[in-house]
Amino acid sequence: MRRRLIYALSLCFLVSCTKQMEQENITILTSPDGTIISHITTNSAGEIFYDVILDKKTILLPSRLGFEMRGSIKAEKLDIQKDGNITKSDNKPSYSLYDGFEVIRVDTSSFDEIWTPVWGEESSIRNHYNEVLVHLKKENRLMDIRFRLFDDGLGFRYEFPCCEADQYLCVKEELTQFNMAGDYTVWWIPGDFDTQEYEYTKSRLSEIAENYSSTLRGNSSQTPFSNKGVQTSLQMKSDSGIYVNIHEAALVDFPCMHLLVDCKNHSMRSYLTPDAQGYKGRIQTPFHTPWRTVQVVRSATDQLASRLILNLNEPCALDDVSWIHPVKYMGVWWEMIAGYGSWHYTDDFNSVKLGETDYEKAKPNGRHSANNARVREYIDFASSHGFDALLVEGWNIGWEDWANCNKDYVFDFQTPYPDFDIAALNDYAHSKGIKLVMHHETSSSPRNYERHLEAAYELMNKYGYNVVKSGYVGDILPEGMHHYSQYMVNHYMYCLKEAAKHHIMVNAHEAVRPTGVCRTYPNLIGNESAMGNEYQAFGGIKPGHTAMLPFSRLNGGPMDYTPGIFETDLKSWCGNNSTFGSTLVGQLALYVTMYSPLQMAADTPEHYSKHPEAFQFIKDVPIDWSKSVYLYAEPADYVVIVRKDKQSDDWYLGAVTDEQVRNFNVKCSFLEPGAYYKASIYCDAEDADYFANPQAYYIETRVINREDSLNIRMAPGGGYAASIKKIK
Amino acid sequence: MRRRLIYALSLCFLVSCTKQMEQENITILTSPDGTIISHITTNSAGEIFYDVILDKKTILLPSRLGFEMRGSIKAEKLDIQKDGNITKSDNKPSYSLYDGFEVIRVDTSSFDEIWTPVWGEESSIRNHYNEVLVHLKKENRLMDIRFRLFDDGLGFRYEFPCCEADQYLCVKEELTQFNMAGDYTVWWIPGDFDTQEYEYTKSRLSEIAENYSSTLRGNSSQTPFSNKGVQTSLQMKSDSGIYVNIHEAALVDFPCMHLLVDCKNHSMRSYLTPDAQGYKGRIQTPFHTPWRTVQVVRSATDQLASRLILNLNEPCALDDVSWIHPVKYMGVWWEMIAGYGSWHYTDDFNSVKLGETDYEKAKPNGRHSANNARVREYIDFASSHGFDALLVEGWNIGWEDWANCNKDYVFDFQTPYPDFDIAALNDYAHSKGIKLVMHHETSSSPRNYERHLEAAYELMNKYGYNVVKSGYVGDILPEGMHHYSQYMVNHYMYCLKEAAKHHIMVNAHEAVRPTGVCRTYPNLIGNESAMGNEYQAFGGIKPGHTAMLPFSRLNGGPMDYTPGIFETDLKSWCGNNSTFGSTLVGQLALYVTMYSPLQMAADTPEHYSKHPEAFQFIKDVPIDWSKSVYLYAEPADYVVIVRKDKQSDDWYLGAVTDEQVRNFNVKCSFLEPGAYYKASIYCDAEDADYFANPQAYYIETRVINREDSLNIRMAPGGGYAASIKKIK
Repeated sequence: MRRRLIYALSLCFLVSCTKQMEQENITILTSPDGTIISHITTNSAGEIFYDVILDKKTILLPSRLGFEMRGSIKAEKLDIQKDGNITKSDNKPSYSLYDGFEVIRVDTSSFDEIWTPVWGEESSIRNHYNEVLVHLKKENRLMDIRFRLFDDGLGFRYEFPCCEADQYLCVKEELTQFNMAGDYTVWWIPGDFDTQEYEYTKSRLSEIAENYSSTLRGNSSQTPFSNKGVQTSLQMKSDSGIYVNIHEAALVDFPCMHLLVDCKNHSMRSYLTPDAQGYKGRIQTPFHTPWRTVQVVRSATDQLASRLILNLNEPCALDDVSWIHPVKYMGVWWEMIAGYGSWHYTDDFNSVKLGETDYEKAKPNGRHSANNARVREYIDFASSHGFDALLVEGWNIGWEDWANCNKDYVFDFQTPYPDFDIAALNDYAHSKGIKLVMHHETSSSPRNYERHLEAAYELMNKYGYNVVKSGYVGDILPEGMHHYSQYMVNHYMYCLKEAAKHHIMVNAHEAVRPTGVCRTYPNLIGNESAMGNEYQAFGGIKPGHTAMLPFSRLNGGPMDYTPGIFETDLKSWCGNNSTFGSTLVGQLALYVTMYSPLQMAADTPEHYSKHPEAFQFIKDVPIDWSKSVYLYAEPADYVVIVRKDKQSDDWYLGAVTDEQVRNFNVKCSFLEPGAYYKASIYCDAEDADYFANPQAYYIETRVINREDSLNIRMAPGGGYAASIKKIK
Repeated sequence: MRRRLIYALSLCFLVSCTKQMEQENITILTSPDGTIISHITTNSAGEIFYDVILDKKTILLPSRLGFEMRGSIKAEKLDIQKDGNITKSDNKPSYSLYDGFEVIRVDTSSFDEIWTPVWGEESSIRNHYNEVLVHLKKENRLMDIRFRLFDDGLGFRYEFPCCEADQYLCVKEELTQFNMAGDYTVWWIPGDFDTQEYEYTKSRLSEIAENYSSTLRGNSSQTPFSNKGVQTSLQMKSDSGIYVNIHEAALVDFPCMHLLVDCKNHSMRSYLTPDAQGYKGRIQTPFHTPWRTVQVVRSATDQLASRLILNLNEPCALDDVSWIHPVKYMGVWWEMIAGYGSWHYTDDFNSVKLGETDYEKAKPNGRHSANNARVREYIDFASSHGFDALLVEGWNIGWEDWANCNKDYVFDFQTPYPDFDIAALNDYAHSKGIKLVMHHETSSSPRNYERHLEAAYELMNKYGYNVVKSGYVGDILPEGMHHYSQYMVNHYMYCLKEAAKHHIMVNAHEAVRPTGVCRTYPNLIGNESAMGNEYQAFGGIKPGHTAMLPFSRLNGGPMDYTPGIFETDLKSWCGNNSTFGSTLVGQLALYVTMYSPLQMAADTPEHYSKHPEAFQFIKDVPIDWSKSVYLYAEPADYVVIVRKDKQSDDWYLGAVTDEQVRNFNVKCSFLEPGAYYKASIYCDAEDADYFANPQAYYIETRVINREDSLNIRMAPGGGYAASIKKIK
């Protein structure tokens, strides 16, 4: 099966390979449909490369694989310096696992199955790939690389079999290369070990460094590492119109991967999130890394339709998933985010020590939103409009003094404020068919959270909560650890598994970005891990952001974007001068375009009451789908998607645009032949504009069938939404 | 009350004060008996000093107090370097809290009470001191220093009131000076952030650096920091015969203190254990540090009688202490330590992943000591000889692959090996009046331990365990944290408090050294935190070690030294060639000289069965006392102590020596007038010697009264023990 192939290598792209060497094929992997080819090659230095070729066009040039490893797993060499100080260092030098390899075996296999997600954009998913497992040896060390080639791209991961030489390993850096075959257009946010809450920049790969500074924006925890660092999922596009996306799948017990770009050579390499010592992965063999993924498709809509990330994750690990279901919810939340109410109960304290500070004697500040009366108003409203649940933030003591203080014992996740009657409010909510959603802001003190986790989950079970929104605002404690370090990746998974034991669904904010782990643990029904709608109240978000997220953040899993803000003029009710970058209809469209099994109607009851007709769409829209059709899309420009309800024959259409007015013609051929549908269409008014006239909309009602077309027009920062209900 | 006093300062001892400045008294503190005086002074630079004068002799010269503080509590300044790398740093410079102070108020008070420990060397303790609280201000920052002067020394601590300027603080270094008034003799072990398991060296203060290298000895976790670094409790002696001891009391939520010696100037300063970032204490105000203590007494026996450390701790925090009691126990332990048996069950695995590795299919190695049959033998023996409890180590899965691997999930603390029937063995033990002692080796993975803590304690409750021996072998995870960092000090306290909720007593090995916290949480019935008897099997311990520990390690609280090895010739039964540094009688004496409410008979049933007469002393000796009399002592040379049983009128005498033969005459005037006592006296034989003839002893039985004297003779590495039972 081996054949000799000589690449015309040039020095410019094989960054770490200083000499032009002959490449010899180890194996050639072909996608099931034959359109993608990946050559796995080696050279006389024993380096291992892969490439990606689509329709005979090279998308990724040969890119080297491997690691730099720490020589020891702990520092134990003591040296007394001249000044008497004692230094401690590793007693063995680091070593390379990117060269000197001998190929000892290649296994090939194929796989094809249809699997059924608990919830999702479609009711069944095909997982179809060809696989090779390349067994490598360097001296007495073993490393395998497993490649899976799908019709929509490549996944590969490193595997370390158990061997006596290297039972435990410590990664100094992963040096996986992604050498692009051109100066691709790229939509990127700065690489950062602690936040993904940035707006996207579009540039050429070669232009990243020069545009970098302007992309930085303050955050309560922020650790960018290089002006050539970017995050995954990273969407690119070649000049010939091929869409390439680099991400990872199944991030479990390993640091999250960033990318470091060589702007000149259009190449990238992995850059893992370090721990407090600067190391990047503590491994006990047998072990495998997460998958590194290169999605390669011919259109932007194909990228949106790709299930490669989910397919590379393990099947569901839970025996019983009957308690997991999509959730549509409201929240005592936006009024605090916008600045009207407060999470904290009193202005008496600027220092709080739980167990010592006496809240019973404190004077309420009169702005505490999570009070019994206000929560009941939300319950009444949510119940009367058919919601499942109501989030209440600021219910528990400690909010007077919590963020970024290096404070270990910030919250106990158990003690309500004096004006939040947890028993009575849950009883009241349940009597109205509403579940309360628990909120656990950890203040990024994971040890404290874990210490209280069991009791907190038991409290949830006691009062009938079945969803928790957890938060990780601020720098991780202990200092030096990051939100995306292995230590924290391990923590998020721990919480998820413990939650599953209690039949609790998790929506983790500020946690590591999703990588499809929700396939294995479908109780992970939401994550934030990107700039969410809340930034509309933190200055504003430029239009186009929600046309970008489906290509990047959503590639790994659903986002709790918290859409549905109707009163986008924040200063009108709470003095907030942010420029809201979306029209009202643009907000409606997000329920379709931003897939999530957890969808919030984020605005207040008062604001929804002013627009009952538009609110009807939020009430109608399903949050679980049997089918999704991606009609039109371009990253950060526009997205037009239509989806079919999992519980009925109804369809829902959503479309968003950036600051440009856009028109699309949608042929309704996705509809069932012979059937008629009542379409309720929510449109930006002719003079609508996210800045000048965001609330101008009209609703059109029509009967349509599959022969019809819908003419979509979207205002600047606007959108389009339609419910298309089958007439029985 | 203020008077002016000018010290004849010389440049040589005021290390950080570069100019000879006039000292002005802030206040003068006098001990209750008037023999110790401490001047609290300041100078024109606003520095604050204290000194210690005993019987008009200066023991401590004026020593400066204060801190260097980090300017920010988190790093948040981002800088893009020329190479594109981004650095993150503090946005404010560090600042001094050791000068520029203004004295804003001085409060004085006195205190005198008798309190009753739950267990101890005596049934009641007097806590008698004079106190001053000096309120200081530097610009808008407040710091107080509280001094307590007892008849046996000084304690002081820093207090940070809550103020808006500094609600949260981060300590860069504590710069408390201890400037000795001479080149004192000092018994020291190397300062180390991770271990106290060293042998002591006697030298002058000026000679520490030159003797340093020879004192280092390998350990599974070891982080010495300077060849001038030493640990507390640090025993010193002036040429005029005054005994000075520096330690700390009530170490809670702060890093453990070491000392950095200026050998030339005979001065020291505090050197706190860093966290992974090199910082040394994260503080939320209001806060106070642990006490820094300077015990100053006229004799070595007075040092042993000092209760200053306990007195500076808070009173008992537990409402119910009925479940706390002293424990005399045996253990399935020494046979593994010596090399005869193994903790692990099988030799099949060199890699274990809990939950994946299948022990049921593994082949037993035939050396696993914690098996049902062997444990029953120990239970039978311990029961028939009146013990309370039996420790069993190696009972739970994971020991094949555990130490120093950077392995997070090392043990689950719940799953027994296939040959350890936890239910049946506990039932059997209870039927014989024996409690099993749980063992939790954490492998220094505190997060993993905390994750399993509640379930592990519940398991203990379920099966009737009421004591846990916890262990912290190996480097702390995450790497960069140390056994004595604030992070771990916090962890040990967390476990102690959680254990109390379950009515579990704790014996923590490799944890931070005790500082009298057992007064507040008397369920802390033991710690290791020094080189224990186990080192007799790790090469051997030089005689004299146990004559040193009462002056250093035991100053903070009891030690689980694990005495009572009768078969000191280890190679005779397990091929271990260590040189055991004690005679058999020397081992007996430790039950009196090394006070602990938790005492082990560490040898095997077989070895005790060969010496039933000597074993009788271990069976007889109480482990709780109403009174202790310290008869003769000199650090590392000899200790002679007699104690009265708390439950009876019986007395017990113990004496140990170093490698010298020693004779003492003990007048029995401590006995009750008119009463007669049966004395059973355990003596080294005339030709006994720890190396050549360790098991040679004889037992003398006499009737004595308070007019009698006992002539104690101890062989090299030997001792002397006596039970003195009142004849009724």
